[in-house]
Amino acid sequence: MSPTLSKQDMFLQRLKEDAELVQAKLQDLLSDTPHGAERTRPERLLLAMQHGVLNGGKRIRPFLMLEVARMLGTDHPGVLRAACALECVHCYSLIHDDLPAMDDDDLRRGKPTIHIAFDEATAILAGDALLTMAFDILSDEATHPNPAIRAELVLGLAQNAGVGGMAGGQSLDIESEGRNRTEDEIKQMQAMKTGALLRYACEAGAILAKSDDQTRQIMRDFGTHIGLAFQLADDLLDVTASSEQLGKTAGKDLNTNKATLVSLYGLEKTKAILEDLIEDSHKMLQPFGDHADILVAAAEFIAKRKN
Amino acid sequence: MSPTLSKQDMFLQRLKEDAELVQAKLQDLLSDTPHGAERTRPERLLLAMQHGVLNGGKRIRPFLMLEVARMLGTDHPGVLRAACALECVHCYSLIHDDLPAMDDDDLRRGKPTIHIAFDEATAILAGDALLTMAFDILSDEATHPNPAIRAELVLGLAQNAGVGGMAGGQSLDIESEGRNRTEDEIKQMQAMKTGALLRYACEAGAILAKSDDQTRQIMRDFGTHIGLAFQLADDLLDVTASSEQLGKTAGKDLNTNKATLVSLYGLEKTKAILEDLIEDSHKMLQPFGDHADILVAAAEFIAKRKN
Repeated sequence: MSPTLSKQDMFLQRLKEDAELVQAKLQDLLSDTPHGAERTRPERLLLAMQHGVLNGGKRIRPFLMLEVARMLGTDHPGVLRAACALECVHCYSLIHDDLPAMDDDDLRRGKPTIHIAFDEATAILAGDALLTMAFDILSDEATHPNPAIRAELVLGLAQNAGVGGMAGGQSLDIESEGRNRTEDEIKQMQAMKTGALLRYACEAGAILAKSDDQTRQIMRDFGTHIGLAFQLADDLLDVTASSEQLGKTAGKDLNTNKATLVSLYGLEKTKAILEDLIEDSHKMLQPFGDHADILVAAAEFIAKRKN
Repeated sequence: MSPTLSKQDMFLQRLKEDAELVQAKLQDLLSDTPHGAERTRPERLLLAMQHGVLNGGKRIRPFLMLEVARMLGTDHPGVLRAACALECVHCYSLIHDDLPAMDDDDLRRGKPTIHIAFDEATAILAGDALLTMAFDILSDEATHPNPAIRAELVLGLAQNAGVGGMAGGQSLDIESEGRNRTEDEIKQMQAMKTGALLRYACEAGAILAKSDDQTRQIMRDFGTHIGLAFQLADDLLDVTASSEQLGKTAGKDLNTNKATLVSLYGLEKTKAILEDLIEDSHKMLQPFGDHADILVAAAEFIAKRKN
């Protein structure tokens, strides 16, 4: 077994273990009587939230936050809570993106989307409530004893998920359908829509570890690379993979004439850019030596994933 | 001029001044280059957010937060920011409630709702982005130098706006359409849907003033009373006022057979309950003496408002 393969195996094992931890914690956070909660949670809305969150998925964003925090030396149980908060935001964005007024998708990971399984109003509210819950989780002292850390986690998530981040990117994406866009415009849109939360995943790990500014900057840059690689790989998959592999409708970007870098560069150049991103990520993490092995393998996995 | 009238006049003057301060601060927070922001804000989404927020309105929630904070002795400029964050959450809830899948309203304060003036996807995203921006504003150190206060403001808003608060109440409201509900069920739904944010407005004022637990509890209780009074007055208006007075479609609750306490109690008993709520609010605020005059007048105004 080559050393590279072995690191990939270690990474895959860690990814699986983290996904199980995240699933269990999300189940707890989304139960009708979570630890410490005093408030009534309406059953139908809670079921819809569970439907949107407890549906498998690789949990890449929580993994990145957990792994960065581990690499930087913190294993406070609150990191898992923060990772789950981020996953709630990711899942809210999928629920709203799937709505009839947006991408109008009936399936997500092979299961009916929430507006199909429940109804449209419930899907809108479930997304709203998951977004709100993320900030509930982050600002609770169980996430970190230091309120300055909690406030910083909230600020970072809000900035990366809002009008200057994910929501803004989704708006740019909708506007760009059917129009010709420049490379810079596509990059900007993708950096906001997909990149922002992945960058935050890495940065939040460094915030939780109380890292110095230089380390935070490295993790932000690494997250930016991961974000671009993720989107390029996603666009590649949309062209090359079948619907069965993806668990969602393939070729959708081409059908709706959505601007992607793959449609601009072509397959070969896109693959070359992905190789460069892996290479750069590796260099970026050299200051952390062997401790970064799993993150390096994660970058490779994200760039080359098959679904 | 009777002393009671004079307090009402003082209150109305204060309400108007605060609404102007809130409007100016919201304009700043929702500009394309707000102070300190580094991020691109997509124009169309930002315009939709402005449309949903900078549309007048009495700004009752921000007023309550500002006035409670003033009564308790704080005039830090960050209070205005926190009040604007709360208004962003209120406005997001209106935008999403107006969507075709929810109340399907074309008009709000006499102007086209966002899904009419823009489109449905933009209305969903504008709501999402405003909710997110509220947490961005609260967790920024410009709101309060003490991160523990910022974290507490975030936690309270998230709990009152989420599945155990406003979003949960909206879900219960949708479920209850066309069904017979008990008094307790209607009260629970209204306390969550409308009461939670009004209670938070009062509690947040006390948090910002770093008040002791007893004072916070009083302000929470006062907020709970205000919330119930607000909803009862709203339901009364739906029965008695014209669409012109309301700036939205009147009689909507009756038409859609929505359960309200007015439909359960009748007009006279509802008015009597409102009188009791004003009386109780007054008693609750007696420890603050004259300092509470404006809040007492606010309770009376909210219970007896004509639009």
